[in-house]
Amino acid sequence: MLEEIQQQPEAVQRTVQGERTRLARVAEEIRRRDPALVVIAARGTSDNAATYAKYLWGIGNSLPVALAAPALTTLYDATPRLRNALVVGISQSGESTDIVAVVRAARAQGAYTLAVTSAQSSTLAAVADETAFCHSGAERSVAATKTYTTQLAVLCLLSALLSGDAALLGALEAVPEAMARVLEGAASIAERAERYRHIGACAVLGRGLNYCTALETALKMKETSYVVADPYSAADFQHGPIAIVDAGFPTLLFAPPGRAYAGMHHLAGDLRARGAETLVFSSEQEVLDAATAALPLPPAVADGVAGEAVSPLIYTVAGQLFAHALCRAKGLDPDHPRGLKKVTLTL
Amino acid sequence: MLEEIQQQPEAVQRTVQGERTRLARVAEEIRRRDPALVVIAARGTSDNAATYAKYLWGIGNSLPVALAAPALTTLYDATPRLRNALVVGISQSGESTDIVAVVRAARAQGAYTLAVTSAQSSTLAAVADETAFCHSGAERSVAATKTYTTQLAVLCLLSALLSGDAALLGALEAVPEAMARVLEGAASIAERAERYRHIGACAVLGRGLNYCTALETALKMKETSYVVADPYSAADFQHGPIAIVDAGFPTLLFAPPGRAYAGMHHLAGDLRARGAETLVFSSEQEVLDAATAALPLPPAVADGVAGEAVSPLIYTVAGQLFAHALCRAKGLDPDHPRGLKKVTLTL
Repeated sequence: MLEEIQQQPEAVQRTVQGERTRLARVAEEIRRRDPALVVIAARGTSDNAATYAKYLWGIGNSLPVALAAPALTTLYDATPRLRNALVVGISQSGESTDIVAVVRAARAQGAYTLAVTSAQSSTLAAVADETAFCHSGAERSVAATKTYTTQLAVLCLLSALLSGDAALLGALEAVPEAMARVLEGAASIAERAERYRHIGACAVLGRGLNYCTALETALKMKETSYVVADPYSAADFQHGPIAIVDAGFPTLLFAPPGRAYAGMHHLAGDLRARGAETLVFSSEQEVLDAATAALPLPPAVADGVAGEAVSPLIYTVAGQLFAHALCRAKGLDPDHPRGLKKVTLTL
Repeated sequence: MLEEIQQQPEAVQRTVQGERTRLARVAEEIRRRDPALVVIAARGTSDNAATYAKYLWGIGNSLPVALAAPALTTLYDATPRLRNALVVGISQSGESTDIVAVVRAARAQGAYTLAVTSAQSSTLAAVADETAFCHSGAERSVAATKTYTTQLAVLCLLSALLSGDAALLGALEAVPEAMARVLEGAASIAERAERYRHIGACAVLGRGLNYCTALETALKMKETSYVVADPYSAADFQHGPIAIVDAGFPTLLFAPPGRAYAGMHHLAGDLRARGAETLVFSSEQEVLDAATAALPLPPAVADGVAGEAVSPLIYTVAGQLFAHALCRAKGLDPDHPRGLKKVTLTL
């Protein structure tokens, strides 16, 4: 797992360079078809990448994005009307049976379909109109890391090409170097993780473009450290679930600069007032100072929304390193999580 | 809270009777406009009702449903293109500022907008084209119960009227009596809850149409008992999070008869094999027998998908009673959850 975490700067760079031509063609076709909506079918880590696209494509491309409920197709035999839709299937292996089923059903209806996968000769790639390839290289770790960030890179690249957003493209090209800087701080993240050796549960919080970072970090913590890490968008957390917080309750907050920052900073203060333990991942001194434990990260790679839009690729690396280090601190083996296989086939 | 849980049979009956004419008109307008997609904006409990609609309207009305990310509108000033959409805002109080903002922005774009609320003279009702009224009566409990089930009743009634599904309408009309039967079993649910007096975390699992029941029960447990209750669809749970399960780990499973039943039954067996504690809510003896603790519920009110489609209204009552009883067993006060207010205003 650690080895694959470290391969991410190169994997993202390969993906951004390698998929540009193909995704420019896909973007052209999307413009031509002008879909009324996007439906993304995915499970697990790939579903967190779908959540990233829901925000980014909404913000950058004005596209309404629905996360598919694959059960509609596989259990109820009732795929919704998707004629005028762009339907994206995201699967590392390209063999998730229910994701393949959704893409196949959508294409049969006349939808334009795109596969996002690390396996070019997979079933998913075969059933979709086009395939965007995640240049992650083979992933052996059960806990997905480089396949996730290369999926984000593909989704971000497509957004930038579709809107012709040069600032976003520039920010994406700066991601590998920022990832490398996060990796340089691995030792201090590991040191930080020790403090959490004995937690059994926690909340993991993000907002807006980094809601996906909270989802993905929580999933990594569950898979490797068996912590009941409950992810929430900051807004939803305040609608009830915040009641679980009492003195010392551990919370992780992702607070990069951007539009979501003010809300995260406010939440950090609210959590401190409730006596919670707040571990804050941020480049901003102000919110780091308000935390009970701080994880300083490199500054944004670009100003404005472009910098915030690529921050999930960078902050996720810190979340992965933290989950990995927590697992080691607990004396567990990150490479052999209990009861999990690499490819999950859903009934 | 308990008083309001008990009012649900009447509240649902009032809602189904009282909104039929108005929703027939809304259904007529939806047919006329033939929207390419539905976007539902909601937070907290209301967002769980939105998840119900995502499944039910997909199955019964072939409508693709996206759950809105209100932050797109409120933080990023980038509401996606929703011209040809039906946009539904669900809010008990009708005063959730971000839900109002999404509905207002969608209507300005030309979308057809529907408010679902218990407050007829609310801001949300004022900004939407039409309002469906949840006849819940005033809700004083911070933990929403009757407003949730009356929201489900509205969403189900609209589905039935839109497709002209007499079986679904009949099933919905049978719900109040089935709810009353669940309420009669409150004492045995309370007795069952005692066993969980000392849990700090658990997983709450459903699938398909009852994924919302898992979400809503977990939220009630968080709000009233401060348990880190992590909700998952059975399919997503198997994609990684199941690693958190070890010997004695408490899980709750909702397994009514229907298309999702086989998968839930299979999962119950898998969890038992991992040594987990499985508390199963079901009418089916087979899956109850496979549980470490059983919560028998009344049989389906109708055969086929119609019965499964209304089961979330009935099974949720059992989940509410369980959350309430667990709260009491823990010596807590369900009517004064710590740090929560009735109306949450998101920044």
